[in-house]
Amino acid sequence: MGNAVAIVADRLGWEERLLIQAAPDFGLRADWVNDESLGLGDPDAPSVKDYDLLLVRSRSYTRGGLIATLAEAAGVRTLNTARAIHACENKAALRALLHTAGVPVPDFRLVLSRTDFTRALAELELPLVLKPVFGGMGKRVTLLRDADTAQSVYDYVEDLGHAFEQAGLVEPYLGGSSVRCLVVGRELVGAAEFESGGTDWRTNAALGNKHRALAHDPDILKIVDGVVAELGPGIYGVDLFRTPDGLLVNEVNHAPAFRAVASATGADIASAIGRWLQELLA
Amino acid sequence: MGNAVAIVADRLGWEERLLIQAAPDFGLRADWVNDESLGLGDPDAPSVKDYDLLLVRSRSYTRGGLIATLAEAAGVRTLNTARAIHACENKAALRALLHTAGVPVPDFRLVLSRTDFTRALAELELPLVLKPVFGGMGKRVTLLRDADTAQSVYDYVEDLGHAFEQAGLVEPYLGGSSVRCLVVGRELVGAAEFESGGTDWRTNAALGNKHRALAHDPDILKIVDGVVAELGPGIYGVDLFRTPDGLLVNEVNHAPAFRAVASATGADIASAIGRWLQELLA
Amino acid sequence: MGNAVAIVADRLGWEERLLIQAAPDFGLRADWVNDESLGLGDPDAPSVKDYDLLLVRSRSYTRGGLIATLAEAAGVRTLNTARAIHACENKAALRALLHTAGVPVPDFRLVLSRTDFTRALAELELPLVLKPVFGGMGKRVTLLRDADTAQSVYDYVEDLGHAFEQAGLVEPYLGGSSVRCLVVGRELVGAAEFESGGTDWRTNAALGNKHRALAHDPDILKIVDGVVAELGPGIYGVDLFRTPDGLLVNEVNHAPAFRAVASATGADIASAIGRWLQELLA
Amino acid sequence: MGNAVAIVADRLGWEERLLIQAAPDFGLRADWVNDESLGLGDPDAPSVKDYDLLLVRSRSYTRGGLIATLAEAAGVRTLNTARAIHACENKAALRALLHTAGVPVPDFRLVLSRTDFTRALAELELPLVLKPVFGGMGKRVTLLRDADTAQSVYDYVEDLGHAFEQAGLVEPYLGGSSVRCLVVGRELVGAAEFESGGTDWRTNAALGNKHRALAHDPDILKIVDGVVAELGPGIYGVDLFRTPDGLLVNEVNHAPAFRAVASATGADIASAIGRWLQELLA
Repeated sequence: MGNAVAIVADRLGWEERLLIQAAPDFGLRADWVNDESLGLGDPDAPSVKDYDLLLVRSRSYTRGGLIATLAEAAGVRTLNTARAIHACENKAALRALLHTAGVPVPDFRLVLSRTDFTRALAELELPLVLKPVFGGMGKRVTLLRDADTAQSVYDYVEDLGHAFEQAGLVEPYLGGSSVRCLVVGRELVGAAEFESGGTDWRTNAALGNKHRALAHDPDILKIVDGVVAELGPGIYGVDLFRTPDGLLVNEVNHAPAFRAVASATGADIASAIGRWLQELLA
Repeated sequence: MGNAVAIVADRLGWEERLLIQAAPDFGLRADWVNDESLGLGDPDAPSVKDYDLLLVRSRSYTRGGLIATLAEAAGVRTLNTARAIHACENKAALRALLHTAGVPVPDFRLVLSRTDFTRALAELELPLVLKPVFGGMGKRVTLLRDADTAQSVYDYVEDLGHAFEQAGLVEPYLGGSSVRCLVVGRELVGAAEFESGGTDWRTNAALGNKHRALAHDPDILKIVDGVVAELGPGIYGVDLFRTPDGLLVNEVNHAPAFRAVASATGADIASAIGRWLQELLA
Repeated sequence: MGNAVAIVADRLGWEERLLIQAAPDFGLRADWVNDESLGLGDPDAPSVKDYDLLLVRSRSYTRGGLIATLAEAAGVRTLNTARAIHACENKAALRALLHTAGVPVPDFRLVLSRTDFTRALAELELPLVLKPVFGGMGKRVTLLRDADTAQSVYDYVEDLGHAFEQAGLVEPYLGGSSVRCLVVGRELVGAAEFESGGTDWRTNAALGNKHRALAHDPDILKIVDGVVAELGPGIYGVDLFRTPDGLLVNEVNHAPAFRAVASATGADIASAIGRWLQELLA
Repeated sequence: MGNAVAIVADRLGWEERLLIQAAPDFGLRADWVNDESLGLGDPDAPSVKDYDLLLVRSRSYTRGGLIATLAEAAGVRTLNTARAIHACENKAALRALLHTAGVPVPDFRLVLSRTDFTRALAELELPLVLKPVFGGMGKRVTLLRDADTAQSVYDYVEDLGHAFEQAGLVEPYLGGSSVRCLVVGRELVGAAEFESGGTDWRTNAALGNKHRALAHDPDILKIVDGVVAELGPGIYGVDLFRTPDGLLVNEVNHAPAFRAVASATGADIASAIGRWLQELLA
């Protein structure tokens, strides 16, 4: 096979630059390809046919999933696979998938309407978290500490207008720390624990909080194995909640930022990715 | 002049039914006219030319303002006037107008972006209220008790997509009660105080809370006079906050619901409106 | 097994009423269950556990897909399956799936941005059709006859704000007629050809146009077999374009309206569905 | 008075750079002030109190209008005035205002719903133009040549979700040329005629089309005088349609781009603005 990798993304960010820089060390040539002008659907698909592998780094799940689906249909290998991107996109479906496979996930309620929302508030105990089913990077993930302000927050959900943006989850708030695991292929290459700072209750790695590296403990490795068994090998950011009952998978990111984990652990994630792509294309 | 009144609205609600029922007592004929099919702009404007007066009860300020503007341009009298509807629509401009006229209003910050929002959080003390500049009925009016969850609520504002929906005010939370004054013409016809119940922090009359009738105290009458001096005679729901420094005008509603005030005070608001329209058309 | 069927939908429409009415003839009890208050995610999922089968008729793909996914995860059988609903939801992915399986589909270009759109206009010949990747019932499916007005139509796509609503297809306009096939289980139970009338260029069966019943010709049967082989047995509205090169699958509807096909063909579709559910639950 | 001018805008564009560069020639100091962080509402309003005049160049009417309103309330002079910005923002109200004042404007119908839209299509003859009531720069201004595709374009309007974005005008298409007049103070400083090119039917100056300078003919001067009499002296881009019955005012821009007119006419518009500000602040 060849060695030409397209890094398909909406921007050339920190991670993309590192990947392009690391590529030659692994005998690869990597280009940034803007995800807004691929012209997919064309049976000849010239813009992707020149590459041996598409590394899909679109921050939008919608874009990433469509691009991977049509690129695969045009016979071009993609990472993550279209199937994995779609599985990560839908937080409710991912939890159902992992739960069925025996991987621990948090309890939640699907919220498609204000009626659902009110019912979830009645069934679960405050504090609760309201988050979009579709979406990433911590956006619109809101902590509900008080019942009497919850309905006014839900007004915003109603005003979003479309069922896709409105679909939400309500889940118990599981405390102020989360574990971000960077997975490349089938391996855990770095894990760090993030704690919420004073200005934002969220601990999403993309938002930048206090953190510390974690040794690769057996519980984390078991969860990562379970996730990879369901989604297939890939490049994932697996976010875990630490609870009295053990670790739970919150979500899996299909195009993970990895600056925070790299900084916390010293892991050379770009090289880990380069090495794995080299193996795949050999 | 004539006696034909069009009640222009998006629906035939409790208030509209009462107004139509009361009309004959005052020598008027009142019809409900759907606000979505007036065909305005037509120089002959047949759908409004048949009426001597348009009572604009569209819950949407955008619709109400456009309809009043074009009906007035076609030579048809409207209530409220286009000028009054536009003044009520924009909470920031209304406060500036009233403040300049010496009518007391709450402090606030205009929020056009996350930068503005963060600055307002730094300058004002919690708890704070975030509300849309444009809009009514308490929708999207949110209480911010905690700094660390404020930014995640603002994510929703960013996702609304258009500058008009995004424009907001941040203001100090002035406690759990508000006074709703119903004004007809130049007169206060009823006033009631509403307190927030246990399930929602808001006391907006449209949301239905505990209430009690208020005697017409001189402070309220002075404020109502000030509002009418600026907006002109009309049918208004004037919402006041009670603070240690006295009453402040929160907002003025251009098409007020009046069931709650009628129920709290026993005032026959539909008849008060009918009587005033009779005078105007005499 | 049991005989209790939940018809999960956002409303009780013509089709749902007929299904409920026909159910007893096949030993079934069918209830309408509002799709906005299922409280899914609850491990005990009481609102769906009472039923032996969920017939998902939500017009929203987002709702239908989420409900089927979580109901299946809770061990409740659903029709269509979550996998089939997701496959139907995404017009681009469905075409890729069917194309790979040898089922004929139209050419198209995926449009994620104005750059993609401009490129598609340059590569394909007018007239063209612009349609959402996600969505149904003909909504926002627009005919582009003239290049010089296409960009102003695309302004609206940009203003929709979210990647999910913005994702579109551009495809050649294949003429003013389409064939709607109603599939129950693995069988074609009715097919009719619709022609566009004078007031709207679209021939979507949901919009109501001139139609005629079609005999079950071998080309249609072959396509239906191909679709069912990919999606699994189910209740589908398969929309075909008739072209000089033969029939092509435009899209497959997961919760098809069937009044128009029933009226054109005389087929008793509700009974066909009842009979099939009876077999499944036997 | 002083000489400090804030150019309040969302970006530092071609026009803003020229204005800042020209300021010293007229004894002025001009700074760019980002419109997203003014913190208005603060009674001390430090961010605007430092300036003697605010030149409001926000491309968003919503932002521009709110900023001008609150800056004026804080005692700071603004150009254009809040009143003028609000008048320009609302295409329907502006036409009513000008029509009443005897300034010629095109016929139009206000479209608040699909019912209004269908009625406008029935009352007026194709080709027609559909445009937003609120908005500028030619965005979403669509030519409707064919009745049978109009409803599918209107689907997009319905999907915009909020009454403000949905409010539209339908008007006769008045041909492929338009006249852009740049007004500073009370004077016409340049006028050019733009013709639509081959790729887009629109002739909006912001979109860049073929153009030629116009001598200051008496008809144009009379219209400009009429506009200034209604809006007050200011900096306006007045867009005219040329019809067999003479020139009509299409719209007036509150923060006009002037590169195209400057290039067509050779007029030094930045200096004209500098000179006028110098007079105002003298």
